[in-house]
Amino acid sequence: MDGESLKNLLQKVKDGECSIDEAVQKLRHLPYEDLGFARVDHHRAIRCGFPEVIYCPGKTTPQIVEIFDRLARTGHNVLASRASQEVFDALMATAKYPALKYDAAARSITLIQKPLAPSSDMVAIVTAGTADLPVAMEAKVTAEIMGCRTELVCDVGVAGLHRLLNNLDPLRKAAVVIVVAGMEGALASVVGGLVDCPVIAVPTSVGYGASFEGLSALLTMLNSCASGVSVVNIDNGFGAGYCAAVIINKLNRRRA
Amino acid sequence: MDGESLKNLLQKVKDGECSIDEAVQKLRHLPYEDLGFARVDHHRAIRCGFPEVIYCPGKTTPQIVEIFDRLARTGHNVLASRASQEVFDALMATAKYPALKYDAAARSITLIQKPLAPSSDMVAIVTAGTADLPVAMEAKVTAEIMGCRTELVCDVGVAGLHRLLNNLDPLRKAAVVIVVAGMEGALASVVGGLVDCPVIAVPTSVGYGASFEGLSALLTMLNSCASGVSVVNIDNGFGAGYCAAVIINKLNRRRA
Amino acid sequence: MDGESLKNLLQKVKDGECSIDEAVQKLRHLPYEDLGFARVDHHRAIRCGFPEVIYCPGKTTPQIVEIFDRLARTGHNVLASRASQEVFDALMATAKYPALKYDAAARSITLIQKPLAPSSDMVAIVTAGTADLPVAMEAKVTAEIMGCRTELVCDVGVAGLHRLLNNLDPLRKAAVVIVVAGMEGALASVVGGLVDCPVIAVPTSVGYGASFEGLSALLTMLNSCASGVSVVNIDNGFGAGYCAAVIINKLNRRRA
Amino acid sequence: MDGESLKNLLQKVKDGECSIDEAVQKLRHLPYEDLGFARVDHHRAIRCGFPEVIYCPGKTTPQIVEIFDRLARTGHNVLASRASQEVFDALMATAKYPALKYDAAARSITLIQKPLAPSSDMVAIVTAGTADLPVAMEAKVTAEIMGCRTELVCDVGVAGLHRLLNNLDPLRKAAVVIVVAGMEGALASVVGGLVDCPVIAVPTSVGYGASFEGLSALLTMLNSCASGVSVVNIDNGFGAGYCAAVIINKLNRRRA
Amino acid sequence: MDGESLKNLLQKVKDGECSIDEAVQKLRHLPYEDLGFARVDHHRAIRCGFPEVIYCPGKTTPQIVEIFDRLARTGHNVLASRASQEVFDALMATAKYPALKYDAAARSITLIQKPLAPSSDMVAIVTAGTADLPVAMEAKVTAEIMGCRTELVCDVGVAGLHRLLNNLDPLRKAAVVIVVAGMEGALASVVGGLVDCPVIAVPTSVGYGASFEGLSALLTMLNSCASGVSVVNIDNGFGAGYCAAVIINKLNRRRA
Amino acid sequence: MDGESLKNLLQKVKDGECSIDEAVQKLRHLPYEDLGFARVDHHRAIRCGFPEVIYCPGKTTPQIVEIFDRLARTGHNVLASRASQEVFDALMATAKYPALKYDAAARSITLIQKPLAPSSDMVAIVTAGTADLPVAMEAKVTAEIMGCRTELVCDVGVAGLHRLLNNLDPLRKAAVVIVVAGMEGALASVVGGLVDCPVIAVPTSVGYGASFEGLSALLTMLNSCASGVSVVNIDNGFGAGYCAAVIINKLNRRRA
Amino acid sequence: MDGESLKNLLQKVKDGECSIDEAVQKLRHLPYEDLGFARVDHHRAIRCGFPEVIYCPGKTTPQIVEIFDRLARTGHNVLASRASQEVFDALMATAKYPALKYDAAARSITLIQKPLAPSSDMVAIVTAGTADLPVAMEAKVTAEIMGCRTELVCDVGVAGLHRLLNNLDPLRKAAVVIVVAGMEGALASVVGGLVDCPVIAVPTSVGYGASFEGLSALLTMLNSCASGVSVVNIDNGFGAGYCAAVIINKLNRRRA
Amino acid sequence: MDGESLKNLLQKVKDGECSIDEAVQKLRHLPYEDLGFARVDHHRAIRCGFPEVIYCPGKTTPQIVEIFDRLARTGHNVLASRASQEVFDALMATAKYPALKYDAAARSITLIQKPLAPSSDMVAIVTAGTADLPVAMEAKVTAEIMGCRTELVCDVGVAGLHRLLNNLDPLRKAAVVIVVAGMEGALASVVGGLVDCPVIAVPTSVGYGASFEGLSALLTMLNSCASGVSVVNIDNGFGAGYCAAVIINKLNRRRA
Repeated sequence: MDGESLKNLLQKVKDGECSIDEAVQKLRHLPYEDLGFARVDHHRAIRCGFPEVIYCPGKTTPQIVEIFDRLARTGHNVLASRASQEVFDALMATAKYPALKYDAAARSITLIQKPLAPSSDMVAIVTAGTADLPVAMEAKVTAEIMGCRTELVCDVGVAGLHRLLNNLDPLRKAAVVIVVAGMEGALASVVGGLVDCPVIAVPTSVGYGASFEGLSALLTMLNSCASGVSVVNIDNGFGAGYCAAVIINKLNRRRA
Repeated sequence: MDGESLKNLLQKVKDGECSIDEAVQKLRHLPYEDLGFARVDHHRAIRCGFPEVIYCPGKTTPQIVEIFDRLARTGHNVLASRASQEVFDALMATAKYPALKYDAAARSITLIQKPLAPSSDMVAIVTAGTADLPVAMEAKVTAEIMGCRTELVCDVGVAGLHRLLNNLDPLRKAAVVIVVAGMEGALASVVGGLVDCPVIAVPTSVGYGASFEGLSALLTMLNSCASGVSVVNIDNGFGAGYCAAVIINKLNRRRA
Repeated sequence: MDGESLKNLLQKVKDGECSIDEAVQKLRHLPYEDLGFARVDHHRAIRCGFPEVIYCPGKTTPQIVEIFDRLARTGHNVLASRASQEVFDALMATAKYPALKYDAAARSITLIQKPLAPSSDMVAIVTAGTADLPVAMEAKVTAEIMGCRTELVCDVGVAGLHRLLNNLDPLRKAAVVIVVAGMEGALASVVGGLVDCPVIAVPTSVGYGASFEGLSALLTMLNSCASGVSVVNIDNGFGAGYCAAVIINKLNRRRA
Repeated sequence: MDGESLKNLLQKVKDGECSIDEAVQKLRHLPYEDLGFARVDHHRAIRCGFPEVIYCPGKTTPQIVEIFDRLARTGHNVLASRASQEVFDALMATAKYPALKYDAAARSITLIQKPLAPSSDMVAIVTAGTADLPVAMEAKVTAEIMGCRTELVCDVGVAGLHRLLNNLDPLRKAAVVIVVAGMEGALASVVGGLVDCPVIAVPTSVGYGASFEGLSALLTMLNSCASGVSVVNIDNGFGAGYCAAVIINKLNRRRA
Repeated sequence: MDGESLKNLLQKVKDGECSIDEAVQKLRHLPYEDLGFARVDHHRAIRCGFPEVIYCPGKTTPQIVEIFDRLARTGHNVLASRASQEVFDALMATAKYPALKYDAAARSITLIQKPLAPSSDMVAIVTAGTADLPVAMEAKVTAEIMGCRTELVCDVGVAGLHRLLNNLDPLRKAAVVIVVAGMEGALASVVGGLVDCPVIAVPTSVGYGASFEGLSALLTMLNSCASGVSVVNIDNGFGAGYCAAVIINKLNRRRA
Repeated sequence: MDGESLKNLLQKVKDGECSIDEAVQKLRHLPYEDLGFARVDHHRAIRCGFPEVIYCPGKTTPQIVEIFDRLARTGHNVLASRASQEVFDALMATAKYPALKYDAAARSITLIQKPLAPSSDMVAIVTAGTADLPVAMEAKVTAEIMGCRTELVCDVGVAGLHRLLNNLDPLRKAAVVIVVAGMEGALASVVGGLVDCPVIAVPTSVGYGASFEGLSALLTMLNSCASGVSVVNIDNGFGAGYCAAVIINKLNRRRA
Repeated sequence: MDGESLKNLLQKVKDGECSIDEAVQKLRHLPYEDLGFARVDHHRAIRCGFPEVIYCPGKTTPQIVEIFDRLARTGHNVLASRASQEVFDALMATAKYPALKYDAAARSITLIQKPLAPSSDMVAIVTAGTADLPVAMEAKVTAEIMGCRTELVCDVGVAGLHRLLNNLDPLRKAAVVIVVAGMEGALASVVGGLVDCPVIAVPTSVGYGASFEGLSALLTMLNSCASGVSVVNIDNGFGAGYCAAVIINKLNRRRA
Repeated sequence: MDGESLKNLLQKVKDGECSIDEAVQKLRHLPYEDLGFARVDHHRAIRCGFPEVIYCPGKTTPQIVEIFDRLARTGHNVLASRASQEVFDALMATAKYPALKYDAAARSITLIQKPLAPSSDMVAIVTAGTADLPVAMEAKVTAEIMGCRTELVCDVGVAGLHRLLNNLDPLRKAAVVIVVAGMEGALASVVGGLVDCPVIAVPTSVGYGASFEGLSALLTMLNSCASGVSVVNIDNGFGAGYCAAVIINKLNRRRA
């Protein structure tokens, strides 16, 4: 609530257009719903530019179904990340959402209720290897439901540099590049040195032994000798897609 | 070298306007200077949007002076990060750069040769505590030399939440927010949940014991429950400032 | 055995009211039962204010059943933590404990044999997300069987700060606040800066990648910039509930 | 600002006793002072029960002197932790604080402006070895300036268990016990099993090799098999003293 | 593409023997096939001396089958590492590769299409214990398909030094020695001090507790007091076999 | 082979009593059997005082059966550690070893072929909790098959110190004490300060969260403030039992 | 106090030979001296077989001087470990101890007041390299002041195995072998496989990079494939010497 | 000593050409000199192809001087690594070695007594940045004194990929490539994918924050997606140079 609307509210109190109790309510209760086990944050779309996303692990299927329902009722598009097939089946069983889709690789459930008008700006999503694909798909699904156009460039890891060098076009056309890489994660630095747009690096847990479940790629990316690279959590395709969309949406809003 | 200019070059070869040896040279030698101990990458301004920055640690003072000189001769603005007073004195002693400046807190040397026309977009730089100031200053110097307007909001750590809540205006006006925090680094998540623009989080080594030289804040920021937060290396104010500037500059170029 | 009772015992020896062998026994054998594989510590209720609690992992079901039986026979209330359904079924099969209850989320078995008279002081248990609920429930069950009144505030993580700020009432009324949070665990610092009572922070293993099974939240909480926060082991809801109850019970006893 | 005072403020707005702009100010600006590099949180005494404490590392001496001055002017007692001799000398040089004291072992500066009325409840501070003394002294200074009576029991580490067993009296009389131990930190568990009050464990960096700067003692304390033990950061005597005082003060306020 | 062939290509352009568009293609497209989810790097045999190897984990069985097929069609020998029985069965089901073999211990699938002419130089593969055998077998299969003769010396760990000392002959005859050891991995240092050829050390995850899944052996090998020892990733028998073959093949080519 | 027997052998060569080839054999081949996948070290009984022990993990059941057979044929007692029920069944199926026994808790298979004459010196094995029992049993089985008398003292962890203090008799009578403890492992330090004999500490992986699979107890024990404590690997009951037996056997031999 | 002496004491109370207050004193006060900052444990010589040793780090020089004095007055031999030259000078300045000696390499101060009668059993101390010598010297000084004969074998690291194999005589004559090694620490396993007596392994911080200050050698030794090896803390020469002496002294006492 | 020479020796014993005592000596004493604190391993030149190298840290200057002298007397070339200026000055002060040289950047002392005949095979040493130069110089000095020709390619880190791509000639001509890189160490993977010779990767401690003193680069290199890369310890330029020389020398010997 910014200074201006606060003044307006107080003016209404002064003018008797709003009772004191109503004002207290307004000042106190920002919009969210309390389900007991969860508080659905309907306000987030206004505050952060996109509705709350359901992170599924650790929630029971009935909990997810109920949270999903509350979010869907608002008419916004809905995203549930790291969702199992079982959760998707439970949502389908409600027969409420004809448009419901499940991307099994990305483990993402989407419900598109408002048509998407993809941005002119494009997010390029680059993977080092085939095994990084599920994380890349999560980034793709996320960026798209948030209104971004995406382009996927697979399996261009640095061990075969020419594969990358021959696929620079989408990277150079992109407004944001997401680099998804496991093992030693060197691709982020190489891409970072080749483009002039923000690079969001996603380390993956692909690898074994001293990759320590993604720690190796994470450290690589944090220490990138290329500037302009920032990093999200291991396997956090969702976070990278979200960051990319926030960058594009924010800047677009400013210019709109 | 994109496809078009490659075609042009080959056309000139065909037409005899360019000798084969010249073409080989052009295809081989992208612009950089070999100083023996270093290769100054003059091409980076074109490729990545800003000239190479001199990272000083591990380089001898004479090496830095020579690299600085090569970069300065191009007429670009020059930035040397993590520079000691001794390096600055050595550069001053050359009497070549009247506009040379040293920000001791940020340990940054700047040479502004082309006037800066600060962007309309603003980068808000927020610190959790006073001890995080040097890292924030490094981010500020970096973003500014890359053409960004900045605003600094100090000492609004989450232990006194009202200090943050009363200073949300600059954060909400910003195109990018940089959050600089040590100890537990919780500020990044809190800010991430309050704004609708990209947040770049910089963990600092401020703290002791189980902060493990910044590891605690780093992990906090990587695991942020707020979406839209990406992270750079511990104490990497330069990287955060650079990322912020790349975001703003890229998007501005696209709309220009 | 304090100085006074020691004197009394020795006086009885001197007066012949107690034989030397009896005295040796008394001086030697504090009350516990030796089951071979375990020594049930009946003395703990006197020494520490609450009977021994059965930590189930690593014990076989028959071992747990036997220990439970010894504790139950004393007439005290009994708590078995981290208990599987199988253990509960085995205890039910004995048909000895009509009042036996199992909280599946908390994985806790309770036997209330002495009616609880909940304290006037209240323990507020706050979770960052829905997935932290099982750990919070373990804290709740523990604090309650030790005689404390509790209040649960769910899903008020810092990514949606207004959810927390609108639920400060129970936190401000509490004598002790338990904060249960995974991922980056920032909630502990934010709560610590808002209340004037002891805060016990429980990191949870909720998260993935660089949360390193709760290490991230643990370090966050240990480095809290808010004073008055102390920390227990990852996922140790039991420990937090116990600490809260000890604080309240100790202080109540002192004033009784 | 609780509901009641909010209603009052709104009533005054309605009644014209308070202008809208004044109300905006009051609703916006909780009491803190902005020094540019720091925001002194005068509100903390009300919110958390004790004024802001100055954590010195990373702050310049002039910054500390200025923050100290703002806090001292409020008439509260002031504590600066981890302060060097140099900071103390700079404060003495201002000749403003006749009552200023420096505990070199604890690296703590105190200014007692309001006489302390030590609590009837006592905090026992126990150290495993002589080398843990500085951390214990920091806890002692902190608890005392916050109004607690303390008792120090030194060098009772578990390698000579009789030294501990012969000094149980102060531990049993205490309302809170602080255990300060480095190396393997086993003392916390042993004490935790002997008392019925809250135990706050402080791991110290005393040790070498596989003590890993206090990590060993930290893990020991987090994994304590004794219930009722919570832990603060390595070498964080201040935090332990603060926690102990918050426990005692909170409970006392509730009964007052 | 080296300078000479570049000149030739340009000459052809000049002479009109090659169209500009063809030249652009040649300069741009190094040989690889794009399968969408993967880019098969046919160029690697020329660039690095051996065709791309299929690392199976994280790839679906159909993906592996398709990549395998593309590589097999080139007529080269094909190696798929860390392959499950299921993958082998799927490849057998295609009935395309009569020569297909599966080494279950090594989890390696091989297709020998060009007869191998084993090198005169021999690779000795030494294991500390029987449990290290699968990793050693992976090294063996890899070195052999790359044209090397191998000799396996099993179970000569340092706890029974005479077993090693009595088997020095193959080690001394070898051109390269691969040492495969888990637990404390001391064998690499001992062998390194006994031979005059390159030693490639492979730490394995054999062990428990403080072996930390191979970390112990890895650190041992990296810190070897014997010179001439280099190290590959934990359990990376493939990498060791590959390195050994590269050493032998490179040197052989140079002398051919 | 010591200097004396070497002289004798050479004398025999000189005297023609031993052919050169025989001498080469004798000098070369210390007694072990090569099974291809394993070299059974029959020499170890002479060199180290006890036959080779079979560490089962990573070996296939047929491999274990064959190694067991070779060791059993020598007439020595045989021990297989970390053996599964399946391995035991396979050995039983051979119907070769009527005296074969399996201790399921200790996961140890023993074959007593030579009657044991337990030492007068006793090894006391002390556990902190019931869950540490399997590791303690492994120590017990090992020490016993190596000829030592043992005494087991269970569940005397430091949280109930009187349980330990009332069971000091076996500890004080012991020649060696083995302390088995997980969680924070404090028992080793406490016992180390109470006895005058060597203490071998075994950290166990009992615990959760920040016990990090036994790391916490391991560090505790390595940093023990009590002197005279040495440590073996996490969960290494076998190693502790072996060490204890070596101490007793060595000293007994010296005095025999 | 064992059962027998307890009976005697109680008999005296019954018989009036000992007053109740005296008995309380005897039962309560085991012999130690309280210096305020330290409790000198005079009882340790009886309980553990050797007087308390002064660990110097973290203690001020005056504190050490005072503790030293109390221990020296008892007439026992005194050992101060990790002592600086400054501490030694301060002790010399008291002119009280003509027999005081300082071993600068071992950083150990010794005061021999009772003549040592070296044991017939010998402790062999073996180092991998010259840089391990200071730790070995600390072990040597410690074992000797506790009455053991020692023999030092230097620089026999496994990179030159013949150096070790040619020096096996002292190892085979020893009752206990201490192995001191940094870097990869492989020497412990090799020695462990060659001798039939207890091996105490001391990892040292000698090394760089991935030796991580001794962690590498520590893990190596904990994972030793040779049985009969136990481990003390990094650089803990004192602990190893102490353990060795305890083994020898305990067994000697039992046979005396 | 191989089988053949053993037979010869025994034949001589039989024929009386060699006394038994002489034979014992020969069989026992491989050539090394015992300096008390060190055993100079003169045998290493024969066994491993190059004389022992003096690793200076942890040795006193007089110790180094003496070891150097023993090695120099043999007439071999001598190398002392990680040597300080002080050590060099002490060696110069002996006035014994006119040819002594010190490379301050590499911290290496060399004494060339036998003229070097550089190999036809060349070792390319590539650094990512200028700060990696000292480690690269150590590799260069080492490889050269072992008879290898070297070529240094500096500052071709992946952030400016064209710098590397334009300098591939020396890499492709090399028999072995050494890659020296700190920060994220990505250069090793990129080079590994471009050459067909063995690549030895040296992580350096260049970097800050999450580079964790070289750990980041180390993990990157161990997880390299390019095959044919093996790794040595952090900052171990010596080890890399040694490995490269062993590869070249071994193969050359085999073909000689």
